[in-house]
Amino acid sequence: MSVTAAKGFTAAGIAAGIKESGSPDLALVVNTGPRRAAAGVFTSNRVKAAPVLWSEQVLKGGEVSAVVLNSGGANACTGPKGFQDTHATAEKAADVLGLSAGEIAVASTGLIGVLLPMDKLLPGIETAAGRLSEHGGEKAAIAIKTTDTVHKTAVAEGNDWCVGGMAKGAGMLAPGLATMLVVLTTDADLEAAALDAALRDATRQTFDRVDSDGCMSTNDTVLLLASGASGITPGQSEFAEAVRAVCDDLARQLIGDAEGASKDIRIEVINAATEDDAVEVGRSIARNNLLKCAIHGEDPNWGRVLSAIGTTKAAFEPDQLNVAINDVWVCRYGSVGEDRDLVDMRYREVKITADLAAGAESAVIWANDLTADYVHENSAYSS
Amino acid sequence: MSVTAAKGFTAAGIAAGIKESGSPDLALVVNTGPRRAAAGVFTSNRVKAAPVLWSEQVLKGGEVSAVVLNSGGANACTGPKGFQDTHATAEKAADVLGLSAGEIAVASTGLIGVLLPMDKLLPGIETAAGRLSEHGGEKAAIAIKTTDTVHKTAVAEGNDWCVGGMAKGAGMLAPGLATMLVVLTTDADLEAAALDAALRDATRQTFDRVDSDGCMSTNDTVLLLASGASGITPGQSEFAEAVRAVCDDLARQLIGDAEGASKDIRIEVINAATEDDAVEVGRSIARNNLLKCAIHGEDPNWGRVLSAIGTTKAAFEPDQLNVAINDVWVCRYGSVGEDRDLVDMRYREVKITADLAAGAESAVIWANDLTADYVHENSAYSS
Repeated sequence: MSVTAAKGFTAAGIAAGIKESGSPDLALVVNTGPRRAAAGVFTSNRVKAAPVLWSEQVLKGGEVSAVVLNSGGANACTGPKGFQDTHATAEKAADVLGLSAGEIAVASTGLIGVLLPMDKLLPGIETAAGRLSEHGGEKAAIAIKTTDTVHKTAVAEGNDWCVGGMAKGAGMLAPGLATMLVVLTTDADLEAAALDAALRDATRQTFDRVDSDGCMSTNDTVLLLASGASGITPGQSEFAEAVRAVCDDLARQLIGDAEGASKDIRIEVINAATEDDAVEVGRSIARNNLLKCAIHGEDPNWGRVLSAIGTTKAAFEPDQLNVAINDVWVCRYGSVGEDRDLVDMRYREVKITADLAAGAESAVIWANDLTADYVHENSAYSS
Repeated sequence: MSVTAAKGFTAAGIAAGIKESGSPDLALVVNTGPRRAAAGVFTSNRVKAAPVLWSEQVLKGGEVSAVVLNSGGANACTGPKGFQDTHATAEKAADVLGLSAGEIAVASTGLIGVLLPMDKLLPGIETAAGRLSEHGGEKAAIAIKTTDTVHKTAVAEGNDWCVGGMAKGAGMLAPGLATMLVVLTTDADLEAAALDAALRDATRQTFDRVDSDGCMSTNDTVLLLASGASGITPGQSEFAEAVRAVCDDLARQLIGDAEGASKDIRIEVINAATEDDAVEVGRSIARNNLLKCAIHGEDPNWGRVLSAIGTTKAAFEPDQLNVAINDVWVCRYGSVGEDRDLVDMRYREVKITADLAAGAESAVIWANDLTADYVHENSAYSS
């Protein structure tokens, strides 16, 4: 399962002592080949963590032999010392694994603005390397958790090849290009360019359309590594579909485990003039705090949907807008539609459909409600 | 006080029965002249309430003789019937006051998507007209409250002339041009163009920089009426300063009474390349839910400030950013600065200073924290 579902990969997850709780906090994923092709997508936040700056450079070569991931500290806004620490992390892994640091990607997650305890992290890499296993995917997925209540893995099977992956993320979920830490692996025999095309296409439609709380992280990283160990080169569209399926599965798991959330909100914008319009409107609805509160209270308050649509630049006429909540068209032609009392909102998943009546494009954005638990979880010191 | 501080105005506030609670819900403000010049600024939300569409038309003539305001219903997203109701409201006021409907502005606030009870509202106008008084400003301010816990009024005195005003607003506070319902009056003898210039300048720097919860209303209306009753024509800059002072006072009162808030956050962006950059960055910080939770928890979590800055297009270099919370520079050069434990956040007002080190422009945005009370207040049915 996870990152070791594909042949040609080993992984490990250990407690290095980075987290004071003693929970697992260090993961290692190694590509044992024969191929070491890779692609990556990173946060579009202009304030980027040291490991993002490092890994972006590594990915330019199109090859990654190993990934070091840690929870317990984001190593973001840590200045030159933070970057040196990421460099030292890659050097240590290269040393232990007999590789070059330029092939080692690094990803970190946790509190921003705190230096990592390198006296714990570096020995941890040595320990993790000693525990690498073809069955280590699950442990690696557990070691990258922060406030996640469950670890997240997914696999899509091809014909004698597969794509597997792991993800972490429970807050600060509103990617510009990717979200939180995700490592995907495949034993398909593909070059970096093919991986890159499949990964960008998949993240654009999955992680990029997850908007739990409107807050974009400094550390978002999605990596896709190919070992070629299956000896099979699937067709690009078949491969892209498998990558998209795994990303979609992991993205849904992120929303399902978002901090303090009690509802998963599926926002589908239909009949938009362009796909960009559909995404802009979906994101505006997803980020409306008043609506998020109403959904939490199981109140089909469609006026808040219209007020969110009205702040966008998308093509629409206010008196042509239609809105359904759980398939009840509570707003027709920008005005009162079916009886709001018909809307049943007892279940975790809530569906909002916004019909812009302006074209034929559509998009789905996933969001969460806003709850007192979210406030509590994020108002504690250094959460 | 309030809208009757200026000579040449009468006002009334009554309970017309629009609100089921029986609280005051209808206000009337009448300009008794000799001049009836007016200016208005309205929501930039493209989904506009019927009274906004109506009043925008009225204001084009540059004259307003009376304003009818109601709480208990926004008359937004109510279709052609909603617009007919606004028209009928203006006609009724015109009839009772011996004016023409084209001189009557209308403003409404309350739940979106519900028709107003015209059988209560129209008789209410007659009742209110019978109670118009030069001392009615306070009662008018009370009648426009929705979830406001206190009514809001302000006055700036000139040399034998003054500007007074009232405001309501406690949620959905993130104007594009104005915020919620505000009526300003002056007895200065000025034409509509002078009022318009002063009002636009004032709202741009006050109401437009208040961002309690990132949610833009469909009903935002700010009106400025001049009676000329003082016979004095102040200089434009002197007058503009008085208007700005009243707007600033009222804007601060809105933030101070925002739904569920426990903190007022003053976000000052300094050393920006342009004023637009400063406003964009300030607004991004103001809308970051994770930061708003941290402020609620009295946690000087500056990493969330940097992550919010990083999502903007403003000119800055990440390693040149400095952030102070309550004057403690917790972030220097994009990295760890002074000890966060030095930050005292016990008081209601919290000051965040973001130094972009990119120019000489600045802007102040006011926001609120995000609390469990906000969630509770806005998750109740039809709040």
